[in-house]
Amino acid sequence: MRFLHTADWHIGKKLYGYDLEQEQEDAFKQIARLAVTQKVDAVVIAGDLFDRATPSEDAVARLDRMIIQLNLKLKKPVLAISGNHDSAVRLNTGREWYKATSFFLTTALKDALVPVEFADTQFFLLPYFRAYQVRNLFDDPEITDTTKALQKLICEMKKNFDPAKKHVLVAHFFVIGSSQLDPEMQPQVGGLNAFSTDLLTDFDYVALGHLHDKNALKNEKVRYSGAPLKFSLAEAKTKKGVWIVDTAPFTCDFHEIKPLHDVVLLQGSYQELTTPEYYKQVAATDYVGLQLTDKAVIPNVINNLRGFYPRIINLERTAKAAAPQAKDQEKLDLSPIQLLQRFFTEMTDSQISSSQLKWARESLERIKTEGEGK
Amino acid sequence: MRFLHTADWHIGKKLYGYDLEQEQEDAFKQIARLAVTQKVDAVVIAGDLFDRATPSEDAVARLDRMIIQLNLKLKKPVLAISGNHDSAVRLNTGREWYKATSFFLTTALKDALVPVEFADTQFFLLPYFRAYQVRNLFDDPEITDTTKALQKLICEMKKNFDPAKKHVLVAHFFVIGSSQLDPEMQPQVGGLNAFSTDLLTDFDYVALGHLHDKNALKNEKVRYSGAPLKFSLAEAKTKKGVWIVDTAPFTCDFHEIKPLHDVVLLQGSYQELTTPEYYKQVAATDYVGLQLTDKAVIPNVINNLRGFYPRIINLERTAKAAAPQAKDQEKLDLSPIQLLQRFFTEMTDSQISSSQLKWARESLERIKTEGEGK
Repeated sequence: MRFLHTADWHIGKKLYGYDLEQEQEDAFKQIARLAVTQKVDAVVIAGDLFDRATPSEDAVARLDRMIIQLNLKLKKPVLAISGNHDSAVRLNTGREWYKATSFFLTTALKDALVPVEFADTQFFLLPYFRAYQVRNLFDDPEITDTTKALQKLICEMKKNFDPAKKHVLVAHFFVIGSSQLDPEMQPQVGGLNAFSTDLLTDFDYVALGHLHDKNALKNEKVRYSGAPLKFSLAEAKTKKGVWIVDTAPFTCDFHEIKPLHDVVLLQGSYQELTTPEYYKQVAATDYVGLQLTDKAVIPNVINNLRGFYPRIINLERTAKAAAPQAKDQEKLDLSPIQLLQRFFTEMTDSQISSSQLKWARESLERIKTEGEGK
Repeated sequence: MRFLHTADWHIGKKLYGYDLEQEQEDAFKQIARLAVTQKVDAVVIAGDLFDRATPSEDAVARLDRMIIQLNLKLKKPVLAISGNHDSAVRLNTGREWYKATSFFLTTALKDALVPVEFADTQFFLLPYFRAYQVRNLFDDPEITDTTKALQKLICEMKKNFDPAKKHVLVAHFFVIGSSQLDPEMQPQVGGLNAFSTDLLTDFDYVALGHLHDKNALKNEKVRYSGAPLKFSLAEAKTKKGVWIVDTAPFTCDFHEIKPLHDVVLLQGSYQELTTPEYYKQVAATDYVGLQLTDKAVIPNVINNLRGFYPRIINLERTAKAAAPQAKDQEKLDLSPIQLLQRFFTEMTDSQISSSQLKWARESLERIKTEGEGK
């Protein structure tokens, strides 16, 4: 069994206000092409198909077209689950009809326990879940946290294991590695308990969605595919793509998806950023985050930089952090005028002038008087 | 060919704040039962499946279950179109998979021209449309109104007519009867042009949705099914149901749907409405509109009446209209105190007392003074 593992498509997502329709369409085409050229037997999408529980009409139509392409036109079985960004109920519409063409979509826990079977592999499609849903499903008050919930779910899945076949779990949750490596860790992120990979050893492969970085876990058989696109500046330096997984013998190969328009993070002084060596690295259609190292005030800086980088999505000054900072307690002890003087120096690398100081004192006095007058 | 004609389910609709989930489920069960007992070959739903373009998760899940019941469990072909209340795009999700089990859902004009064919009948499924959509589809600038648009659509449909078969149009628009009967009529209702039945003579039957009253048209072969439930007090006296249509020989029979909880309009004085002869006509779970004929003020009237009619959805006074009304111009010439005296007399059938008049003058004076003080 050979399958393509992808996740976190987030159809309809915007990047700092920019619609990513073109980029998502292009990434999808690369995924569809890989499904064909790599001759996969199925495409696995591990949750967060949409970016929002109530996606726009446009997003709804686009995902529908993508699945039509994979499943009805290219005749590839599709195995998908709902993620925390999806509305399980909305995504579920039509599910009962999809099975006929091997589009297996699971959004309800009760449907996660019975595998989708191929010649040599059983797939368990586990949608994003909360502990209370598992508690209700099994009417078991002892299921009080997500770890117990997952243990119970896997225990039920194992009753349906065919020992002659490989077992693949498709899931959408936060996994942080082995507890043997770091026994201290029991974090909670965004209200979702993080699981140890120790819980997942019954499976030959776990195809995860949720984290957008394929390197989020260091585990041979428990992997995030990551999103097919960079959805934030924090991901600027990561590579995006999909895993092509063979179950027997087990192999797992990364295939990169080249972004139609990249997300790039650049650092430098205003002078550096406006030289060809810098701005020629970046296409005019790339989404650019800039970290400006200057301390001096540069008038109209963002509009000037847009001449070189038309799609600036963020502008940050690094100099502030580098300048010596007053400790918090120390700052509390300063007068407003002292704070202003320090701020002026940090920002401009020069002393405030006596006339500037006079204006500042007058303004402060006026504000204070008006405040008392009320 | 024998089919059931229904429309305007408006799943998710509320009646004066009351959720109609139970009533809609019950009406659906009656429709499904009729489909079985009447041995129909198909169920036609002529638009407005949902009440809103973005229905709630609950409404989405309920409609999905209903169509699963009709199409996958009872194995009935379902022929449906989108209405003006539906989002054509959202409703369309999954369409490409539905065909395999003879669930034919049309929400796009381009799909309306090719019929769905049964042994002896061609169905043309025409979703709710606007003239500009037809103009764009055919790239024809002369299609400037809905009548021209419909003529063009029917002209295209006729190219696909099989003369050996019957032809049924399923549509969702406003039809008002024959222009021969009333040549003056060219009304526009809600921005939607009304069509004459003259335009529809090419079809052996036209299964309409949009108007909620099955008697909205007097035409043997062009019919509204009406909604399966009363959705307003204006419909209190109408009967709801579906048509069972045979194409050859043509017959069309109405089958009533009994409401789980009725919508009732009662008129009478407070004394009459609170006698058993009145309130025993009505079940405690019925939705009741009351028209109160009293002129006198009745303290706490709605709460008292709720003791007899727990689900009052509207309370109206008919006496007001009967009392002699000052003409608009005359009212403009009256002072506030004169207006108040007249209002008091109209509402209570008695003269305002001198102490009441004194309070009113003092209040008016106070309001005037406060207004000037600002």
